Amino acid sequence: MSVTVVGSVALDTVETPWGRNEAGLGGAAVYFALAATNYTRVHLVGVVGEDFPDEHVRLLEAKGIDLSGMARMPGKTFRWTGRYHEDVNVRDTLDTQLNVFEDFHPKLPKAARHAKYLFLGNIHPGLQREVLEQAQAEFVALDTMNLWIHTAANELDAVLKRVHAIIINDSEVKDLTGERNLVKGAAAVLQLGPRIVVVKKGEHGCLLFEDGRTFAAPALLLADVTDPTGAGDTFAGGFMGYIAQQDSTDALTLRRAVIHGNVVASFTCEAFGPGRLAQTDAAAIQQRFQTFQDLVAF
Amino acid sequence: MSVTVVGSVALDTVETPWGRNEAGLGGAAVYFALAATNYTRVHLVGVVGEDFPDEHVRLLEAKGIDLSGMARMPGKTFRWTGRYHEDVNVRDTLDTQLNVFEDFHPKLPKAARHAKYLFLGNIHPGLQREVLEQAQAEFVALDTMNLWIHTAANELDAVLKRVHAIIINDSEVKDLTGERNLVKGAAAVLQLGPRIVVVKKGEHGCLLFEDGRTFAAPALLLADVTDPTGAGDTFAGGFMGYIAQQDSTDALTLRRAVIHGNVVASFTCEAFGPGRLAQTDAAAIQQRFQTFQDLVAF
Repeated sequence: MSVTVVGSVALDTVETPWGRNEAGLGGAAVYFALAATNYTRVHLVGVVGEDFPDEHVRLLEAKGIDLSGMARMPGKTFRWTGRYHEDVNVRDTLDTQLNVFEDFHPKLPKAARHAKYLFLGNIHPGLQREVLEQAQAEFVALDTMNLWIHTAANELDAVLKRVHAIIINDSEVKDLTGERNLVKGAAAVLQLGPRIVVVKKGEHGCLLFEDGRTFAAPALLLADVTDPTGAGDTFAGGFMGYIAQQDSTDALTLRRAVIHGNVVASFTCEAFGPGRLAQTDAAAIQQRFQTFQDLVAF
Repeated sequence: MSVTVVGSVALDTVETPWGRNEAGLGGAAVYFALAATNYTRVHLVGVVGEDFPDEHVRLLEAKGIDLSGMARMPGKTFRWTGRYHEDVNVRDTLDTQLNVFEDFHPKLPKAARHAKYLFLGNIHPGLQREVLEQAQAEFVALDTMNLWIHTAANELDAVLKRVHAIIINDSEVKDLTGERNLVKGAAAVLQLGPRIVVVKKGEHGCLLFEDGRTFAAPALLLADVTDPTGAGDTFAGGFMGYIAQQDSTDALTLRRAVIHGNVVASFTCEAFGPGRLAQTDAAAIQQRFQTFQDLVAF
């Protein structure tokens, strides 16, 4: 089964203590799509400006991603500039230029509308609702962020009632529910609508709350993290891509989907932008899945 | 096989936003012993003052712990006072009174000397060396802290060359090696002497580095953490107790020992002091071990 992703397509400038990547390919929908395409057909819905390099289009198409929902509009592509510190868990946003993304209203082509699986990337919940009204997906997962939790709470609440899963950071659980404790926080999120809560904890891995059970997965250990930008969106792409490939949301599939999310996210961290992620294939994923199995076997 | 632990026996005063425990039973050796005694015979080596309540002695004896190495000296027992915040990962030490612990020089009775397994709790590395010179253990694990890393580096280096395992926090790995990355940090610790490095990450679980392989275990999730004091020492007690019970340090035993460390540490967090830990038994441990298996199965 195919999966549709709606979210940002960006040109990211990333500074780290060990290098700089100027106006590279980025955006939540891009990371998601490059991850999920390893598992199933992906329909990417987003918007780019006139400056969006053809080479990025060719890369995404070469990876088999359906770009018929990626509009090209007059103006510049969404640009984000960030700086990471020695501790890569800490980053500063230096600049955000919404550009064509400011007036983005997602239009889903037919194939994107008909996809059985849908991921609503981290955009304004009002736009997420617009997507829901076009889509016919049977399973919908959503990402959000502190900005929307604080500035669009009512619209977010309304969308949360209509999705099956939410994939968010531990800090966002606290912002969304007021609970510091993740067990209580996840229980509170489940009350908001989704039946599945996935909490990303960065280098500390991930928690899955579903049907009264909890699953905990550590992250794969990396000796060198070059650029964690997009790791969370990559996780979501691996998670949803695997679910769509298996065409199941039973407990075991969800747990394995978390592992696949961890696996593909580890590739993203190893190079600037999606440089390493774009080179992964089924064999590389399978090898790292086995590494993960050895990491947790007892 | 039996295990000897050398470390502090204390009267702890703990303040949290939800309560206060005044001069309760505490100390690294106490938490370790109460955990390890679920698995094997434990010899506790430490010192208390004239004020150490008989009820604590009776509790430890009732749990089957050998106290022949717990000296009672003129003066007061070591006292520590700490305060936890809403985020229980943050604590302030409000007061430390070394009292009889200031002049502590461990003397191991015959049974403690002959134990096959030895845990050197977090005391000055010079004292850890004194213990090593008395003991005949075949497998020795050590804990330490930032204070000794910074003030007794040469003595610590000398002791590290003589132990098989080190059990420390993630922040201590950074202090000991200068590496922020735990993969590189653990590799650097292995160069210092131990063949096994266990890194405790609190609520984020634990990593085991050994023989070129890495094992990652999440922590059991708790909806309520009443008092995490002693959780790390409890972990060490479960880890070493299980190893001593199995009388093996092969890869699978070490990994399962990490799980048992996590299991017993979860009990410690659930009440002030060792209140809950002291009530655990084999059935409670087995039940929680199964909870852990469900937590990570995929």
